[in-house]
Amino acid sequence: MQWLNGLILQALHEDAPFGDITTEAIVPENVQGNAVMIAKQDGVICGLHIAAKVFTLLDPEATLEARVGEGEKVEVGKIIAEVRGKLKAILVGERTALNFVQRLSGIATLTRKFVDKVAPYGVKIADTRKTTPLYRALEKYAVRCGGGVNHRFSLSDGVLIKDNHIRAAGSLTEAVRRVRARIHHLLRIEVEAQSLAQVEEALECNVDAILLDNFSLDEIRNAVQIVREWSQRRGKQRPLLEVSGGVNLENVESIAQTGIDIISVGALTHSAPALDVSLEIE
Amino acid sequence: MQWLNGLILQALHEDAPFGDITTEAIVPENVQGNAVMIAKQDGVICGLHIAAKVFTLLDPEATLEARVGEGEKVEVGKIIAEVRGKLKAILVGERTALNFVQRLSGIATLTRKFVDKVAPYGVKIADTRKTTPLYRALEKYAVRCGGGVNHRFSLSDGVLIKDNHIRAAGSLTEAVRRVRARIHHLLRIEVEAQSLAQVEEALECNVDAILLDNFSLDEIRNAVQIVREWSQRRGKQRPLLEVSGGVNLENVESIAQTGIDIISVGALTHSAPALDVSLEIE
Amino acid sequence: MQWLNGLILQALHEDAPFGDITTEAIVPENVQGNAVMIAKQDGVICGLHIAAKVFTLLDPEATLEARVGEGEKVEVGKIIAEVRGKLKAILVGERTALNFVQRLSGIATLTRKFVDKVAPYGVKIADTRKTTPLYRALEKYAVRCGGGVNHRFSLSDGVLIKDNHIRAAGSLTEAVRRVRARIHHLLRIEVEAQSLAQVEEALECNVDAILLDNFSLDEIRNAVQIVREWSQRRGKQRPLLEVSGGVNLENVESIAQTGIDIISVGALTHSAPALDVSLEIE
Amino acid sequence: MQWLNGLILQALHEDAPFGDITTEAIVPENVQGNAVMIAKQDGVICGLHIAAKVFTLLDPEATLEARVGEGEKVEVGKIIAEVRGKLKAILVGERTALNFVQRLSGIATLTRKFVDKVAPYGVKIADTRKTTPLYRALEKYAVRCGGGVNHRFSLSDGVLIKDNHIRAAGSLTEAVRRVRARIHHLLRIEVEAQSLAQVEEALECNVDAILLDNFSLDEIRNAVQIVREWSQRRGKQRPLLEVSGGVNLENVESIAQTGIDIISVGALTHSAPALDVSLEIE
Amino acid sequence: MQWLNGLILQALHEDAPFGDITTEAIVPENVQGNAVMIAKQDGVICGLHIAAKVFTLLDPEATLEARVGEGEKVEVGKIIAEVRGKLKAILVGERTALNFVQRLSGIATLTRKFVDKVAPYGVKIADTRKTTPLYRALEKYAVRCGGGVNHRFSLSDGVLIKDNHIRAAGSLTEAVRRVRARIHHLLRIEVEAQSLAQVEEALECNVDAILLDNFSLDEIRNAVQIVREWSQRRGKQRPLLEVSGGVNLENVESIAQTGIDIISVGALTHSAPALDVSLEIE
Amino acid sequence: MQWLNGLILQALHEDAPFGDITTEAIVPENVQGNAVMIAKQDGVICGLHIAAKVFTLLDPEATLEARVGEGEKVEVGKIIAEVRGKLKAILVGERTALNFVQRLSGIATLTRKFVDKVAPYGVKIADTRKTTPLYRALEKYAVRCGGGVNHRFSLSDGVLIKDNHIRAAGSLTEAVRRVRARIHHLLRIEVEAQSLAQVEEALECNVDAILLDNFSLDEIRNAVQIVREWSQRRGKQRPLLEVSGGVNLENVESIAQTGIDIISVGALTHSAPALDVSLEIE
Repeated sequence: MQWLNGLILQALHEDAPFGDITTEAIVPENVQGNAVMIAKQDGVICGLHIAAKVFTLLDPEATLEARVGEGEKVEVGKIIAEVRGKLKAILVGERTALNFVQRLSGIATLTRKFVDKVAPYGVKIADTRKTTPLYRALEKYAVRCGGGVNHRFSLSDGVLIKDNHIRAAGSLTEAVRRVRARIHHLLRIEVEAQSLAQVEEALECNVDAILLDNFSLDEIRNAVQIVREWSQRRGKQRPLLEVSGGVNLENVESIAQTGIDIISVGALTHSAPALDVSLEIE
Repeated sequence: MQWLNGLILQALHEDAPFGDITTEAIVPENVQGNAVMIAKQDGVICGLHIAAKVFTLLDPEATLEARVGEGEKVEVGKIIAEVRGKLKAILVGERTALNFVQRLSGIATLTRKFVDKVAPYGVKIADTRKTTPLYRALEKYAVRCGGGVNHRFSLSDGVLIKDNHIRAAGSLTEAVRRVRARIHHLLRIEVEAQSLAQVEEALECNVDAILLDNFSLDEIRNAVQIVREWSQRRGKQRPLLEVSGGVNLENVESIAQTGIDIISVGALTHSAPALDVSLEIE
Repeated sequence: MQWLNGLILQALHEDAPFGDITTEAIVPENVQGNAVMIAKQDGVICGLHIAAKVFTLLDPEATLEARVGEGEKVEVGKIIAEVRGKLKAILVGERTALNFVQRLSGIATLTRKFVDKVAPYGVKIADTRKTTPLYRALEKYAVRCGGGVNHRFSLSDGVLIKDNHIRAAGSLTEAVRRVRARIHHLLRIEVEAQSLAQVEEALECNVDAILLDNFSLDEIRNAVQIVREWSQRRGKQRPLLEVSGGVNLENVESIAQTGIDIISVGALTHSAPALDVSLEIE
Repeated sequence: MQWLNGLILQALHEDAPFGDITTEAIVPENVQGNAVMIAKQDGVICGLHIAAKVFTLLDPEATLEARVGEGEKVEVGKIIAEVRGKLKAILVGERTALNFVQRLSGIATLTRKFVDKVAPYGVKIADTRKTTPLYRALEKYAVRCGGGVNHRFSLSDGVLIKDNHIRAAGSLTEAVRRVRARIHHLLRIEVEAQSLAQVEEALECNVDAILLDNFSLDEIRNAVQIVREWSQRRGKQRPLLEVSGGVNLENVESIAQTGIDIISVGALTHSAPALDVSLEIE
Repeated sequence: MQWLNGLILQALHEDAPFGDITTEAIVPENVQGNAVMIAKQDGVICGLHIAAKVFTLLDPEATLEARVGEGEKVEVGKIIAEVRGKLKAILVGERTALNFVQRLSGIATLTRKFVDKVAPYGVKIADTRKTTPLYRALEKYAVRCGGGVNHRFSLSDGVLIKDNHIRAAGSLTEAVRRVRARIHHLLRIEVEAQSLAQVEEALECNVDAILLDNFSLDEIRNAVQIVREWSQRRGKQRPLLEVSGGVNLENVESIAQTGIDIISVGALTHSAPALDVSLEIE
Repeated sequence: MQWLNGLILQALHEDAPFGDITTEAIVPENVQGNAVMIAKQDGVICGLHIAAKVFTLLDPEATLEARVGEGEKVEVGKIIAEVRGKLKAILVGERTALNFVQRLSGIATLTRKFVDKVAPYGVKIADTRKTTPLYRALEKYAVRCGGGVNHRFSLSDGVLIKDNHIRAAGSLTEAVRRVRARIHHLLRIEVEAQSLAQVEEALECNVDAILLDNFSLDEIRNAVQIVREWSQRRGKQRPLLEVSGGVNLENVESIAQTGIDIISVGALTHSAPALDVSLEIE
């Protein structure tokens, strides 16, 4: 939690390295104020606890009372929170608080749209590492608020063997061997396959998951078929199947119908438009 | 520049708090690699110097040679940079480098679209303070790369008297008076007007700029008219006119035709989709 | 405010990197103490809130009750604050607290002397960027406590075109043109003139303020005359006139009588002797 | 040395949190420049290595060549250093570099004045802990450059038992006892005496040094006498005698003649006026 | 790597907050020196690259040439590295460099002793989270240098369900269910069993590994038997078996003979005596 | 104290860079828990206040009630503290809290063993600078808890002239002369002697303490004799005598009987095995 305070303090410093010259000139030190935070668009709310911290860091007596839960869907015009405290603190913190809430709610809102499309098929929408640097924990939290699941957090807590690793190792099989010899015993291994041949090689390596990268719908269906048959033939549990690349709100449902397990979508975090939220002083 | 190194080091630490367990298992320490960074969409490139720093922080011998200038328009498929260095450094830094370049290029690309619409009318597209916390300098740089201009950097280097300030002061006139008494002599004063009446009050206060906030096209035209007439009547230079609120690529040209000076667009920084850029190891 | 805590914690660490070996040996942990802070010279008090923070950072229960307001004139012997808390905290924090208060009160005191000299002429005493690195916000606050006004805070929030800029641009006119094309619309432009010819060139460029740098009294009077006449001739508001260089308590009144607007004095922050203040345990 | 880099980077950030807007608009990136640093007053130079770091942190190719040694006396008009590098770096760093050099040279200059007065008597001029928070190492270095000696660096590396400690312990003797039982065996003990009676009590405690605080000249002479006689009587080496309080350039010589060892002067660091130094671009 | 520099700089500051007063008084600035680092005990060397950084942070020209590889066994008297650089830097950095090398070599040495005992049985010696706070990466590196393997790095990159988790969830089965629903798909699940009944429950939950905590030799043998039979009965791969608790150099071989896979030993990092290493100036 | 919070926060971040994935999945946010900290070995307890901070940093409402005093001897099975707070906080903080307590209690326990051996002879057991980097203050505190005394804290607060210094200066006498000319007047001088000849030379230099480094028992006795005779001959107080090098629990008593004053033991901090302490949730 401490790093969040640090992030907010840096954000406030960025927005007012030597004070809010307008507010300081106009607003007396001890005037109190109330404000409401209002959704100006339909969406999923996320990040109100950060807004609360923004205001309490500026005025320890300030309070933000959330009127909706994290991850709750709201309609335009909904009052999502009430803020009370020094008017000065509210005005100085307004933009920073909104900048956090708008971005995270935008991510939660977009995630929810994807999740709603695939829910009937028991498929999960996962995020990627395509996050804003320094915001990974927050953006992955927003994805969960939107109903998505998280993929590995970083390069340290999950193995994903990609094309370049395979080339560096000489073969997929050798890459898996090297990783298996080095990682601790509580980690699984996923391999990114570029072709059906690689799907088969990965199966032979007994990997735990296979990522079908930029496969066409037909290729995905073929891969599912191959994996199922291999699994029955060997009497083994089949590895998880993940799809990524070129996924959007138009094609995500068709992908979900192929029988794969997870669809990971970079756009959740790198291209979600902000949700319009405003703060109105009463 | 130092803070940029700090930001990148934190980003790298976030993405690999205890190493890239896949790459470390597979890629020998001293294998060299080459890679190209390729635009996967048409757009405006921004942030290659940050990508360069990412790689040199991981491998002091690594180089990134930009093939396009900052702010240059490129078409899909264009090689925008070449990277050479330890293969390990390239693989570990890949995602972080791309995360920076994709976001900043996304902002530059969206800015350019707005700028192209209004260029014939001599109107400027400006950014806002609706930036990702801790990214203000970078995102404002991306706006400039896209042909936009920057608004004030923060609450410390420009005065913008808003609705809430006016209410706190009792009147627009009083708010201007208080600010004028307090700020240093190298700063101008802009007032956000909610109505034509406030435009007139602002004129009487001799402010340097007036922000027409969420005005309809007709209201904007009226405001321009009022300001011109006042200016002629008083034989004074008219204040600058800025428009913001509800601006999009559909209506920005009509707004530009009204005779105002600046259009500020929050979406440049809070809702620009990432530009798709990939790194391919050769 | 957070940076102030940081500054104080660093200061305390500097003064006791591994404890106050004398006090720790002598004073039992929980003995309470009272102390008074006393002015040992006439002067203007500034910085008591920092002293308060020093003690509360060492003992969260400690209190410092100010007996005078910030910026208040006091005479020798005046009790300016009362401190209560753990005796240990008072003894460990004493020197650091006083080091802050003495420096800031010294600046406020010297500023007040300058301000008192020029008050009858409606002229303002301004500070400069000749501050102790890392103390700019505090020292500029002390100047305000002494009745002075602040000049720009930094190189980022105000334009002052100096001799070297003019030379780099080729001419004063070209320098103004380049700056005007680049800065945001809420900033003014001041030019430092070395001669009456430059004053005239600056007028033609419609700058907002002219700094007369190291002008003699006669030259200042001539500059005022030139600016007034130009202003009447053009029917325009004249730019502000600032004087700096070689200003001291002996000549500041004569300068103020010439009709200029602002006198900036580096000595306020770089050469103010500390105000003697002591802490006496009761 | 690392902390010095940190200090300078913070100082540069303070002076240009988002760039030098004037210089960036006017001076092209790669224009080179030369400048000379010139003493505008007689004095003792100190801190040129810090100025050098300021410029190299802004431009790694920049150089500052000192023309005088640290601690060297110079006369007005003397070129003390030559700077070469990017013109931009020189202009951006100028004020920060000078702010360091002027303050430290001011301290060295004032110290030298005190030292010159007492040199004939074999007495040392020492600094105190009345330094600018965060500048202790630099300001104590400046004192050495001026020919002074350093007192203890902090509360951690020397024992000085003061009035308040004595009161807390119940007696001087008890205070010494407690300290002696607790400190490591490489530290000496100094006691601040407020009266001749305390001087005698301190002698009985076999302390290593006695600080005569705010003693009149006559009292100092008496103390010297008492200490000498005690020393002869006991056949022991006498403790060092230090004088502090109310010392100035007028009375320091008389104090030095009394036979004491060390005179400590707070004004060296808290009230030294800056030495006027300027940077002139060629 | 950057954090390592930070750690070393803090260590150097800790050991000389305001300089090495002895060395500074005695050793001229530019005298060069050579030194050899010598093992004073038989052991396994680890951490020479940290020692190298210590010296180069103090003198960028300094070099440390390792004479043995990381993880190499040496006998008493062996020169393990040669240092060249400023004598001052060598003397100031000596203790800090040795403090790192002695601790890490101590850990590597102890690990090797355990590893040598169990090597014949194909069992791995793993570390734990019982590391010195802030040294986890270094101490786990030392364990690898000694031939051990790492367990999970932290609470973030591996699931180990312990007694308290089971109690909080109500049952082992419920605990596994909750974790499985929440973690990302690249993580495995290990359960700490306190009894053979829990071993059986864990098997039914299809966990990936079972930790036999503080089991007697007989209990371990029984657990191995139960797990083997379950595995054959179900035709499934058996989970990994890890043993911890009360392991020492006397009993580790017997444990290894039971057929388990991993023995984790807290003492590797929390109780390894330092390896005696000295630095001798030539 | 602030640095301790910083250290703990870093430690917690190290152990859970992105959360405790097991506990977060299993334990509901607001479930409260109790736990007891129990000694699993006889020993001396140290560091409970750090454990308390660990838990309160994770849950501001959490409390740790110490059942034994710092430095108190306990027997196996003793409940040394009770912890109450959110179960989640207790589980997340458990390992970090124990890692601190086990290390510091280990040091206190080992120190006490040495102290008990030499107590009858009025000799002190001192620590060295052979501490874990960044833990010096804590480890020296643990030594005091074990009944030992501290040697100098760092290179900055005590002079110890070693072999290499002597060689650099040309002679022991010259080394002492240089140091005496440079250090402040509240510091003593200790010289490390390698031979009886050096002991004699040190005596002639009137040093305050002599460290007999790696002397045999006979050599120590000779040195004591030489120093006594010199002292009587000169009628001066003899310097303190310190012994270090090769001291262990077997030979420490014999050394103490020789008449020296201080025995410094590096193993106190570099080789103390952790004291086994566990946390049991109730």
